[in-house]
Amino acid sequence: MTFTKILGEPVLSEEELRVRKIKDGTVIDHITAGHALVVLRMLGIDGREGNVLSTVINVPSHQMGRKDIVKIEDRELRPSEVDRIALISPNATINIVRDFVVADKKRVSLPETIVNIVKCSNPMCVSNSKEPVSPQLHVVQREPLLLRCHYCGTILQKEDVLKQF
Amino acid sequence: MTFTKILGEPVLSEEELRVRKIKDGTVIDHITAGHALVVLRMLGIDGREGNVLSTVINVPSHQMGRKDIVKIEDRELRPSEVDRIALISPNATINIVRDFVVADKKRVSLPETIVNIVKCSNPMCVSNSKEPVSPQLHVVQREPLLLRCHYCGTILQKEDVLKQF
Repeated sequence: MTFTKILGEPVLSEEELRVRKIKDGTVIDHITAGHALVVLRMLGIDGREGNVLSTVINVPSHQMGRKDIVKIEDRELRPSEVDRIALISPNATINIVRDFVVADKKRVSLPETIVNIVKCSNPMCVSNSKEPVSPQLHVVQREPLLLRCHYCGTILQKEDVLKQF
Repeated sequence: MTFTKILGEPVLSEEELRVRKIKDGTVIDHITAGHALVVLRMLGIDGREGNVLSTVINVPSHQMGRKDIVKIEDRELRPSEVDRIALISPNATINIVRDFVVADKKRVSLPETIVNIVKCSNPMCVSNSKEPVSPQLHVVQREPLLLRCHYCGTILQKEDVLKQF
């Protein structure tokens, strides 16, 4: 299928047409293939907020072979909300779109310490006890992901993070 | 945005373009708005199977006001797999697509008894004990949904079902 746009704008490729452009909102592109639904759960988005939401999963990508894309209309996500997805999708890019134009574009950036997002996988860790201790993990390596618990030193891998969402 | 297709094929509407047509696979249309992600969880699809998956949520619909659509490429879902989504999305339609043509189209159909899909919400029910008793619920009403536990008579509503997925 090939489409041509009226008004002399460029012909769109197959890949671009899989989900149409949005007028206003946030596009999360270059998500690791197969991870878009976990990304939505990490962001606390379940579709019942009312925003129009488009997701494509496992689509061909020049850079990545396969990738996922999430488009959230009429909502601009803040970096502090989105950076956590770098845990499972370190190459994701965030595009803020206003009136069909990308107004801001950046790669997600993983903080050095992850606080209150991922739990330590050691059930005996003080952060899993009844003590008022927030889970806190240091990033040892970005890709493949390795996190180290601040309290008990337990090492978590990406699969341990995925299991929590 | 308006697009016109090369080769003399008809102009596509905004709604049709939100997610492009698929060549082969299953399209679940007329999903209750905001429920597509629960539908995927009910079907056991998380995106890591490798199939191309497109989802749109809360898009305008003539019939329904708003609706969701899920497109699963290169996989034909069987009615026995899909009928369970009638629990939360009684108007959903299933289209089996082969070579861009809808080869089979049907509405989801809720069985009279739901076995082994939804648990009774009464923690004291025998189906929640260690006894080898499968959860079994009778459909009292389709919409709004009312289910009655075969064993203890507890009534479940749609929200009780949503909570389990």
